[in-house]
Amino acid sequence: MEEITGILIQLFIIFAVAKMAGEMFLRLRQPPIVGEVLVGVLIGPHALGLIGSPDSALISVFHGDGEAAGEALTIVFDVIAELGVIILLFFVGLETRLRDLTEVGGRAALVAVLGIIIPFALGFALISATGRGGVESAFVATAMVATSVGITARVLSDIGVIRSREARIILGAAVVDDILALLLLAFVSGFGGDEFDVVELGLTAAAAVTFVIFAALVGTRVISQYSMHLERLKVRNSPFLVAIILMLGLSALAGIIGLAAIIGAFLAGMMLAEARERYNFEHQALPVYEFLVPFFFVVIGTKVDPAGFQDVEILSIALGVTALAVLGKLLSGAIACRGLPSRSAAIVGVGMVPRGEVGLVVAGIGSGLGVISSDMFSVVVFMSIATTVLAPPVLVALYRNHRTPAEEAAASAGSGLPEL
Amino acid sequence: MEEITGILIQLFIIFAVAKMAGEMFLRLRQPPIVGEVLVGVLIGPHALGLIGSPDSALISVFHGDGEAAGEALTIVFDVIAELGVIILLFFVGLETRLRDLTEVGGRAALVAVLGIIIPFALGFALISATGRGGVESAFVATAMVATSVGITARVLSDIGVIRSREARIILGAAVVDDILALLLLAFVSGFGGDEFDVVELGLTAAAAVTFVIFAALVGTRVISQYSMHLERLKVRNSPFLVAIILMLGLSALAGIIGLAAIIGAFLAGMMLAEARERYNFEHQALPVYEFLVPFFFVVIGTKVDPAGFQDVEILSIALGVTALAVLGKLLSGAIACRGLPSRSAAIVGVGMVPRGEVGLVVAGIGSGLGVISSDMFSVVVFMSIATTVLAPPVLVALYRNHRTPAEEAAASAGSGLPEL
Repeated sequence: MEEITGILIQLFIIFAVAKMAGEMFLRLRQPPIVGEVLVGVLIGPHALGLIGSPDSALISVFHGDGEAAGEALTIVFDVIAELGVIILLFFVGLETRLRDLTEVGGRAALVAVLGIIIPFALGFALISATGRGGVESAFVATAMVATSVGITARVLSDIGVIRSREARIILGAAVVDDILALLLLAFVSGFGGDEFDVVELGLTAAAAVTFVIFAALVGTRVISQYSMHLERLKVRNSPFLVAIILMLGLSALAGIIGLAAIIGAFLAGMMLAEARERYNFEHQALPVYEFLVPFFFVVIGTKVDPAGFQDVEILSIALGVTALAVLGKLLSGAIACRGLPSRSAAIVGVGMVPRGEVGLVVAGIGSGLGVISSDMFSVVVFMSIATTVLAPPVLVALYRNHRTPAEEAAASAGSGLPEL
Repeated sequence: MEEITGILIQLFIIFAVAKMAGEMFLRLRQPPIVGEVLVGVLIGPHALGLIGSPDSALISVFHGDGEAAGEALTIVFDVIAELGVIILLFFVGLETRLRDLTEVGGRAALVAVLGIIIPFALGFALISATGRGGVESAFVATAMVATSVGITARVLSDIGVIRSREARIILGAAVVDDILALLLLAFVSGFGGDEFDVVELGLTAAAAVTFVIFAALVGTRVISQYSMHLERLKVRNSPFLVAIILMLGLSALAGIIGLAAIIGAFLAGMMLAEARERYNFEHQALPVYEFLVPFFFVVIGTKVDPAGFQDVEILSIALGVTALAVLGKLLSGAIACRGLPSRSAAIVGVGMVPRGEVGLVVAGIGSGLGVISSDMFSVVVFMSIATTVLAPPVLVALYRNHRTPAEEAAASAGSGLPEL
């Protein structure tokens, strides 16, 4: 059991520093997620080394093989981090009703589609121009694609404009964009695998699309029709436990058919969104979220090697990728929102800018597949953090002088969303 | 990331079967905890093998070394199980105010002390008589010592007698007994280590006693005096997050000084017990409990080899240990409750019978130290399950014809405690 104590100490350090960094960043009026990733870089094996090195008890379990013990430790952290990001996307899914996807209609879909194509094209062109291969360029470009729904929703809610027309377009687009980006990730991951097989990729794509459509359409209806039967179960709090089973099961299923596990978690959340008020799923998922999600962001940070940014070329690429990531979303907002006031188009564009955890997930998968170098991993982390830090103050400024009294009241009352 | 998918599938299986088994056992009017352990045996590597075998993706991370991959998988499950049992004891701690320990006074302490000495002496004598060594006998005897506070509290609450005199004696005694048993475990673990050093053991004991007293007396006061300052933190839900940091930190600290991590978790809960109503810690800890605790019981089950009970000798020892475990608690109740009606003494004795997770923890630690054979591990698991299954119906029968109308009303209203 001694090796478990060593791991427990590291888990304590991760959680404690995550919350301290979150507190510090909130006091600096920055999103706490940024603090969590940065503190992960600080305590990780490439800097202070508080996290990620196996102790002697763990090494002795592997008969003195330090490398194997290190791998085992990485897997422990990756599994807990994965549970964290699964809970995160499950939570975002709970906030998303199927009709949010359909109601906002064409404009949101156009924002999403253009918001995928333009940043991907710009990113792919830039990274290819630096002489890197197609798969690596495609991975970096994919990481530039998806808006972080959680961060956007949190900012809109904090400034009290979650019911505005622009907010509804952003939220609808963010959902479509997330699904498209995750499908794009499945395709790119297929190219990044060891062998490349067109038939298998086609089957994966078909399975992925079938899974998403089936879960979104059939699953949502089945759940909303039969969820009251859950109350007949004898196990205490059975609806929440069945929700957890659905979340873990669809995550595992998504993983099996080649999608990111978080797509399954998101769909599980969306299937339960109709029933969430009846069973208060969000209220119950929140403590689990607050316990596990910080591990994801800190663990992502521990994988970053800050020495990479000493290289002027890497730093230039990071700045370039960030600039194109912002520009891509602003352009897609401007084109898709023609006919609306220019301020609305700007809000939609800026609202789609934060990449947050989705970019980090893509980079993590690429790194796990071994198709993205540590340089490009660091570039993506830089872009994810920078877009997440840049967007909130600009959004606040765009709304500041245009709020209705109702929006003002909502803003001062605060929001019910968890911190990202 | 493929190796994470394989682990995620196993985590899904564990959680899903745990809840199905819990549901089935509840319908059979048995404690769900028993179903969770038994289903763990069923799906574990010694039976169906759904859990505990690394897949090819995980093995390839260890360059084809299947044994190392298996160890890594075991460590992942052990860490998640450990987080589960930490949350469980944290929760029990939240239910325990320091004054519960002092108020019930001498009688509860006597029940606890005799309830440690008698079962330990009986168990040690029986196992030694079978020709096994002193350390192994001491470990089995230690596993026979501690009442599972959670199970007892749950049963008393379910039958609506949580405020009765007997119930208060049982709860007070169970808390003292838990602390004494965990200190006993620290001593026995010291004997079970690779080298035996009297000075080191003395230091460990001193550190353990200092830690427990300091946390219980000073910690409780500091928390109840300064907890309102937590509200000044900007991080959302900061009191709960600080509670989690305290839980992880004291668990890690307990592990560092040689105690079981769960002692730290229990003390963290007890330190926060005074503040729990203000911040609703139990309400927030409950979803985390329901998510993580089942992993502990199922993982314990996966370590049992049912083939062991085909041996008539082992089965006889298991039945003997169970009988002595019951007898030891009945005797301690009878002696300590002289002067009370014999029915009260019987209730106190039976109420102390369920060993539940504490016996399993002791067996797990002994197994981890390599001082307890798989036979004796199985014996302890048998005893833990049998005492847990036997006590509830007897307790209900002892109370059935003696309930006050208020107790009847409470019984039909149900309880607020989580299922064990």
